[in-house]
Amino acid sequence: MQRITIIGLGLIGSSIGLALKRAELRDTQVVGHDTSSEVARQAVKLGAVDKTEWNLHSAVEGASLLVLSIPVLSIPDTLEAVAGSLVRGCVVTDTGSAKQAVLAWADKYLPPSVDFVGGHPLVGADTEGVQGANADLFRNGFYCIFPSPRASREGVKAVVDMVTALGSRPYFMDPQEHDSYTAAVEHLPIVMSAAMVSAVAKSPSWGDMSRLASSAYHTASSLAGEDPTGNLDACVANRQDLLHWVDQVVLQLREYRRMIEDDTEALSKALAEAYTARALWLARKASGFVERSGPSPEIPGFSEGMMQMMMGEALARRYRKLDELFVRRDEKDRKKPT
Amino acid sequence: MQRITIIGLGLIGSSIGLALKRAELRDTQVVGHDTSSEVARQAVKLGAVDKTEWNLHSAVEGASLLVLSIPVLSIPDTLEAVAGSLVRGCVVTDTGSAKQAVLAWADKYLPPSVDFVGGHPLVGADTEGVQGANADLFRNGFYCIFPSPRASREGVKAVVDMVTALGSRPYFMDPQEHDSYTAAVEHLPIVMSAAMVSAVAKSPSWGDMSRLASSAYHTASSLAGEDPTGNLDACVANRQDLLHWVDQVVLQLREYRRMIEDDTEALSKALAEAYTARALWLARKASGFVERSGPSPEIPGFSEGMMQMMMGEALARRYRKLDELFVRRDEKDRKKPT
Repeated sequence: MQRITIIGLGLIGSSIGLALKRAELRDTQVVGHDTSSEVARQAVKLGAVDKTEWNLHSAVEGASLLVLSIPVLSIPDTLEAVAGSLVRGCVVTDTGSAKQAVLAWADKYLPPSVDFVGGHPLVGADTEGVQGANADLFRNGFYCIFPSPRASREGVKAVVDMVTALGSRPYFMDPQEHDSYTAAVEHLPIVMSAAMVSAVAKSPSWGDMSRLASSAYHTASSLAGEDPTGNLDACVANRQDLLHWVDQVVLQLREYRRMIEDDTEALSKALAEAYTARALWLARKASGFVERSGPSPEIPGFSEGMMQMMMGEALARRYRKLDELFVRRDEKDRKKPT
Repeated sequence: MQRITIIGLGLIGSSIGLALKRAELRDTQVVGHDTSSEVARQAVKLGAVDKTEWNLHSAVEGASLLVLSIPVLSIPDTLEAVAGSLVRGCVVTDTGSAKQAVLAWADKYLPPSVDFVGGHPLVGADTEGVQGANADLFRNGFYCIFPSPRASREGVKAVVDMVTALGSRPYFMDPQEHDSYTAAVEHLPIVMSAAMVSAVAKSPSWGDMSRLASSAYHTASSLAGEDPTGNLDACVANRQDLLHWVDQVVLQLREYRRMIEDDTEALSKALAEAYTARALWLARKASGFVERSGPSPEIPGFSEGMMQMMMGEALARRYRKLDELFVRRDEKDRKKPT
C-alpha cells in the first residue's frame, strides 16, 4: 500500500485529493493534514482523503508522495519540520505560485534522499476554500512542473503521473520565467483589487456609497476578499517582478486618465483592444492554447459594426451630445486669451 | 390594455421584462425593441416580452410606460427620436449609471406632456447579455429613482410600482451624489480592469504569459471583457468624478508599491483591512443594509488568530525566511559606506 499525503486541505489540496481518489489508484491511501480541524473534518466528509492526521510527522510518515498545498511562506517551516520524517525516495511537490523561492527552500531544507519537484496548477474556477473543492478543478488545464536540479527521473515521473491522474496537462517551465509571468497575471490582480478596496472604503462617504456597490464592485473586490495570508505571500514572495508590474499598471492608468479627460477616440480604441485581448485569450484558452497558423479565432459578440461605431466620425457624433451638455471644467481653466 | 415598452433587451431590459411578466400585471402588454434582431428574437423566446417591434415608433406608440435599457450615450438620440411618438402622460424611465447627464437630456428632448423618472437598478449577478436574464435579477436589491424636477406624482408612482413589481427596493437619491458614488464603485473598476489587460497584453511575452493566466486574471479582466460601448459610455458620461477616483487609486497603488518593497507589516495590515472591508460589505449587503447599533456583523473566515499571525512578531518570523533567501536588489543600491 503506497501512501500519498496532502498537507493543506483548502480548495487546491482537497481538489487534488478528490481527483486522485476518482482516479482509483491501486493500493493507494490518501492521507490529509490541515492546521484547521474544521477544514480537515470537511475534507474527510467530502471524500477528498481517506483519513487525516492531526500530527504532522504521523501524516508524512511512510508517504511516497507528499503534496504541500499551503501558502507559499508556510512552505519553508513545513519543509524544515517534516524533513527528518520523510522516507528515502519520497517525492515532495507543492502548489505555490512563486517557484524560485520554493525551489531554494527545498534545496536548503530537504535531505538528498528525497526528491523535490515543484508544481503550480492553473485553476480556472473562481471558487475558494474546501467547500469549492471538486475533482474537475484541474481538468484540461496546465499544471506547471519544476524539477529541482537534483531531482531523479523517477521523482519527476511521479509528479507527472499525479498531474496526469488529475486530468491536467504537465507543462515544464523555467522557474524564473514562470515567476515573472505569474507576477503579472496572478499577483498584480490581487494588488489592484486591494488598492481599489482601500481607495473607496477609506472614503468618508463609504457608508452610503457601499449601498450602490453591486456587480462591478463585487467582481473587482473579489481577489481582495480572498485569504489575506495567501495574498500577503503572493505580494512578497516574488517582490521584484511584482513591483515591475505595479509600475506598468500605474503607467497604464495614467494613460487611461489622459484619454478619459480629453481623448475619447483613443479611449474607445484602448477599450476595444482590451476587450479583444480578453476575448482572444478566452478563445485560445478554450482551444487549449493549441496555436495554429491561419485566421485568428473568432471573437464572440464583437461585430465589425460595433467596431466602426466605436471609431471615427460615428464615435464623434455619439459623444457630441455629451460635450454639448457639459463644458468640461478643465477647459474653463485652460482657456487663455488669444 | 396598457402597454409597457422596453427598448434594449440585454441583461437588464430582458430581466425587467421577465420580472414584469411574472408579476402578472392585469391587462398589460409588454413590447420590446432591440437594434439586434437576434437579441430581440431571444427575448421573445425567453418570454421577456409579449412581442417585439422592429420599428422604434411602432414600439413606443401608445405606451404608458417606456423603459430605456440601453447604453447611456444612446439615450439622447433615442429620446430625441421617440419624443414625438409618445402619448400624453407617458412615463419614461431609464437604467443608466450616469444620472445627471440623463436627466439633462430628458429635460432637453422630452415634451412637457411626458414624465421622466430616471432609474438605476443595482444588480448583484455577474451574468451578462440576454442569455443571463432572469426574473430575480433585481429581487431585494436597491433600485435608485431620480424624478425629473417636473415629473408628476403619478409619474413617480408608476416607476415605484414597476420597481416594486420587480421585487426591488425603491431608493430615492440625489443625482449628483449618485454619480459620484457610481464613479467609485462601478466605473473605476472598469478602468482598472482595462488598464490591467492593456498592461499585460502589450507585453512581448504575452503569448507565453497568457497560458499561465487563470482564475485571478479571469476575474480581474472580466469587466474589460464586457460590452466596450457600455464601458466607453461609463468612462465618459461622468468624467470628472471618475478622474478623481482614478487619481485616488493611483495614489493607493503607489502606497502598495512602497509597502511591497519594504514594509511587509504595513502591507499585511492593508491587506487585512481590505479583506475586512469587503467582508463587512458582503455582510451588510446580505442583511439588506439594515444598519443596527451594537456589535458589527461577524466576518466569516477571519479569526482572531489569523489576524495575530499577520501582525507583529509572528509576521516578522514568517517573512524572515524570505529575506534570508533573497537580499533585495534595492538594498544593494542603497547601501552607503558608514
